[in-house]
Amino acid sequence: MKKLIGEVAAVVPDALAGMAAAHPSLRIDTEHRVVLRAAKKEPGRVALVSGGGSGHEPLHGGYVGFGMLDAAVAGEVFTSPTPEPILAATTAADAGGGVLHIVKNYTGDVMNFEMAAELAEASGTRVASVLVHDDVAVEDSTYTAGRRGVGLTVLVEKIAGAAAEEGRPLDEVVRIAEKVSASGRSMGMALTSGTVPAAGRPTFEIGDDEMEIGIGIHGEPGRHRVPLAPAREIARMLVDPVLADRDFRSGPVIAMLNGMGGSPLLELYLMYGEVAALLDRAGVVVARTLVGDYITSLDMAGCSLTLLAADDELLSLWDAPVETPALRWGR
Amino acid sequence: MKKLIGEVAAVVPDALAGMAAAHPSLRIDTEHRVVLRAAKKEPGRVALVSGGGSGHEPLHGGYVGFGMLDAAVAGEVFTSPTPEPILAATTAADAGGGVLHIVKNYTGDVMNFEMAAELAEASGTRVASVLVHDDVAVEDSTYTAGRRGVGLTVLVEKIAGAAAEEGRPLDEVVRIAEKVSASGRSMGMALTSGTVPAAGRPTFEIGDDEMEIGIGIHGEPGRHRVPLAPAREIARMLVDPVLADRDFRSGPVIAMLNGMGGSPLLELYLMYGEVAALLDRAGVVVARTLVGDYITSLDMAGCSLTLLAADDELLSLWDAPVETPALRWGR
Repeated sequence: MKKLIGEVAAVVPDALAGMAAAHPSLRIDTEHRVVLRAAKKEPGRVALVSGGGSGHEPLHGGYVGFGMLDAAVAGEVFTSPTPEPILAATTAADAGGGVLHIVKNYTGDVMNFEMAAELAEASGTRVASVLVHDDVAVEDSTYTAGRRGVGLTVLVEKIAGAAAEEGRPLDEVVRIAEKVSASGRSMGMALTSGTVPAAGRPTFEIGDDEMEIGIGIHGEPGRHRVPLAPAREIARMLVDPVLADRDFRSGPVIAMLNGMGGSPLLELYLMYGEVAALLDRAGVVVARTLVGDYITSLDMAGCSLTLLAADDELLSLWDAPVETPALRWGR
Repeated sequence: MKKLIGEVAAVVPDALAGMAAAHPSLRIDTEHRVVLRAAKKEPGRVALVSGGGSGHEPLHGGYVGFGMLDAAVAGEVFTSPTPEPILAATTAADAGGGVLHIVKNYTGDVMNFEMAAELAEASGTRVASVLVHDDVAVEDSTYTAGRRGVGLTVLVEKIAGAAAEEGRPLDEVVRIAEKVSASGRSMGMALTSGTVPAAGRPTFEIGDDEMEIGIGIHGEPGRHRVPLAPAREIARMLVDPVLADRDFRSGPVIAMLNGMGGSPLLELYLMYGEVAALLDRAGVVVARTLVGDYITSLDMAGCSLTLLAADDELLSLWDAPVETPALRWGR
């Protein structure tokens, strides 16, 4: 295993220490491994809390800041955080307007966020929750009952975060988050496996002439393993299932071509060129685009495509100012 | 070779097509493989042109936009562009205030930018040039006489770009660029080799238990090959040579912990934590930080450290608004 790490058991806290050193706009609760805004938001505003296993950076800690999350809970690599740190994050983030939990659909995350929400409610904090389950690849998988939550999570955090920052009440922020969650779809693929530090070797074996289509962000199996193919064909294997699952021709979309961590930006742009050509041919109009590493799987080479049908309401919240380590504009 | 590409010979134009599709703020001259701002800057302003071999994304095309570059010339992977496209970029970018070429110190780049500058001058465009040569690892290398130009290039482009955007005249923008170039140092390391698409196999062989210290951004050899070590020791192997080469204790610095393309952000933050602790112990005060993939070497795993001694003048230009695909704030 070749990694830039120290003690395997301390990878997550060591990385959080680096985040704290790099970003004075963040405050790290080292006991609970929670990333918080250094400056709490205005009293009465809705606070957004997300989190999950580490290894998907910049998700979620990199999205803490103005216009997006208030707190992110970092579990061990590919392991859900327990209810206790989620509760700590919820309590610390609450500014009096209630808290929205943004939860990717993995069994452990769903269970632990639910338990933390109950505990928080019991101590007087209003908590609502939105589930992200955008992956069209498989219905159930190693880590999930129902569709996995993947790339759309970034868009839910951005758009609901903008609504909260505007001062909208909790039920409104929930409505927006649910609308995004219902209107987006994703599909991913991998050329190689990532390596979990504690495991010390690649999560799965894959031949030099093979790739995995419909992979999950923990390296869990997807739809099928197929021979390596040119970017144009890979693009089709991502675009077709997404468009087959939902009609995106009725209005503008936000498109994210996301890198899994090990693929260089040169290749991600090349892939986006192929994806954009296919979408154009299918009559899908892309209004906004992200290309880069936004939700990763350690050092896995590969990419995923996320499309979100975005009406004027969602587009205007998307364009609203954001200032986080990984997403920043308009300020 | 496992890559998200189509025809090997078309990797660079295919990636540029994706950039064009992703960023309406950019215009691509496909004939010359030049990335330009879609909206030319105000008449009379100094224009900034950079470029070099591809494979270092987001450098340089990702830094075209308000407050940074006006044009970036993309050569083949790890191959200098010829004078003709550099001339085309220079002519297209010129807004009447003259053009600054920002050149990384590689023999091919230096020669071809010089020739393009002469041709541009002959046809009436004022051209000045700044050389970036910040790599303390080796004095001469495979691609260079003198120190290689690496991470500091990003900082020169940002800070000189801010000066140009403010409307400062060419000689002032040159002075600023030279000041940055003289005040920064870098050092890099690699865990693995990147793979050039046209070669189809890793640029160099390296054992599972080895790493290369002082590597160049084309995979050219560095200072020494040593056994794998924990992040804390790697941090020392980067910090020590940089501090030995220049005293950074006299005032604030801008620090960049840059990923080489194949290392996940989790590890880059972890590395920055170790680097920050060493700098603190050495009495170096970090005023601004970048952590992420800013100048890469395809899919190479590894990182580099760049420090820039930044007085108030440089810090205020650093903080000025920038709006490019890869660097964006304040707007």
